[in-house]
Amino acid sequence: MAVIIDGKAIAKRLRDAVAVQAANLETKGIIPGLAVILIGDDPASEIYVRNKERAAQKAGVNAQTIKYTADVSEVTVLMKIKELNLDPKIDAILVQSPVPAHINEELIQETIDPSKDVDGFHPENIGRLYANRSGYYPVANTPRGIMTMLAHEQIDLAGKNALVVGRSILVGRPMFALLQQANATVTLAHRYTPSDTLMHLLADADVVIVAVGQAGLIQGTSLKDGAVVIDVGINRLADGSLTGDVDFASAQEVAAAITPVPGGVGPMTIATLLQTTVELAAQHHQIELEQAWQNI
Amino acid sequence: MAVIIDGKAIAKRLRDAVAVQAANLETKGIIPGLAVILIGDDPASEIYVRNKERAAQKAGVNAQTIKYTADVSEVTVLMKIKELNLDPKIDAILVQSPVPAHINEELIQETIDPSKDVDGFHPENIGRLYANRSGYYPVANTPRGIMTMLAHEQIDLAGKNALVVGRSILVGRPMFALLQQANATVTLAHRYTPSDTLMHLLADADVVIVAVGQAGLIQGTSLKDGAVVIDVGINRLADGSLTGDVDFASAQEVAAAITPVPGGVGPMTIATLLQTTVELAAQHHQIELEQAWQNI
Repeated sequence: MAVIIDGKAIAKRLRDAVAVQAANLETKGIIPGLAVILIGDDPASEIYVRNKERAAQKAGVNAQTIKYTADVSEVTVLMKIKELNLDPKIDAILVQSPVPAHINEELIQETIDPSKDVDGFHPENIGRLYANRSGYYPVANTPRGIMTMLAHEQIDLAGKNALVVGRSILVGRPMFALLQQANATVTLAHRYTPSDTLMHLLADADVVIVAVGQAGLIQGTSLKDGAVVIDVGINRLADGSLTGDVDFASAQEVAAAITPVPGGVGPMTIATLLQTTVELAAQHHQIELEQAWQNI
Repeated sequence: MAVIIDGKAIAKRLRDAVAVQAANLETKGIIPGLAVILIGDDPASEIYVRNKERAAQKAGVNAQTIKYTADVSEVTVLMKIKELNLDPKIDAILVQSPVPAHINEELIQETIDPSKDVDGFHPENIGRLYANRSGYYPVANTPRGIMTMLAHEQIDLAGKNALVVGRSILVGRPMFALLQQANATVTLAHRYTPSDTLMHLLADADVVIVAVGQAGLIQGTSLKDGAVVIDVGINRLADGSLTGDVDFASAQEVAAAITPVPGGVGPMTIATLLQTTVELAAQHHQIELEQAWQNI
């Protein structure tokens, strides 16, 4: 039976470490500031933003949410971002996805100052990641949180076969880059990958990261014996319960370690967002966070 | 027996198309300008730069080389780049690799204006590539040239297994991004990939791109029957002759198509550099190059 990777517990450790760092910064008169822009009234987004706010307050991060109705003009949002870019109390800016269709999300992402780009979506930060640049830059929080989980579980990636299923810019593509930097041999599969190819890849994969949004996409019988399985999918079933992209019951018979849904990757994303916010605040004040994340 | 992909001939077609576009621009009073910065006296670099100059002149691109001795200060080079960034006659800037150890190559790359970054090495351009952004941006010329070759050979990539061996920022990583955008299922292998894993991947790969710099790394017996093989390696043998990373004689027995070395990928890189230079010139003058590369 697989080890269940307890994302909730690891996220708690990470949030505690963030709180320690935030407290350290506060002794220097610095309170990390996170601005969240929420457009429209998508209930899921509202819950998500509220959770971000609550976790931020607890960790000593000053979070503020700027709400707009769905009919807000693009220029209003862009002006607000420019104002936040110049605001010395704000270290991190994020615009909650999805945004209404009349707003150009690429333009939004590129207007955020790269040094406040807490989601790591600015092309300059994406480029730094892919170019494996020296120095600090923010990286997309979900894949970074997954790397923290893998490190916590002491999973060595060098020379291993890693398979990423799903190629979104939020998860799959930055996940590819991080696994590659950790010296795994990485394959990126997606909607154009034929199902027999996917089966073939799964049979060889030591580490599988799935972020597709399709319940039951991967069954335990398809996995390599002893694989590590990270399930990023969150799907709501007819009975209202949540499930991932992996069939948990059959997968845990075969895998060496697996994340549950809920309680796996989900909690790590918000904790990593706070981690990045504190790092950006430290960067803005030219303070080194020494060994901040050693004991996660 | 494999079709030999004639890089020299395809490069000639591309250079001819560049010359047509440059001539069109000239009727509007625009001559695309390429500035090459060459530091030190590496003989290979000097030959390469001379070849670039010659090809540029023939295609109607105004190339100028700025030469520095190996002991030039970093700040002198950075000041020159800033001057070229502001020079309206210059559309494209490249600094020939390698640069001396006392010069920070990352800083050099990031100082070049992204809109003149003909090598596509600026993080902002790398980020645009990985984020699959809309709009025009320059892409590293060797992998882009390979995509031109594959298109010329009418090789459909969607759903195919593509294997990239070697993960340099010049070739392997941007190659990964381009193949992925073409909807191939892509695996990136590198020095940490165990050799049995590499053999396994080769046996399944419909398209293999090798950029390692190790003669005879890949033998025909390792390839899938009917694979397309693109050999980016250039290795000099004891007898002075050039060879790629693939054992050509055995590979052509198995492959459906293969590039020779020399005469394969090499000529495409310079031709693509000129293509990008003309595109950047058009961008600077807000001119659309319509159907410029349809008949390559």
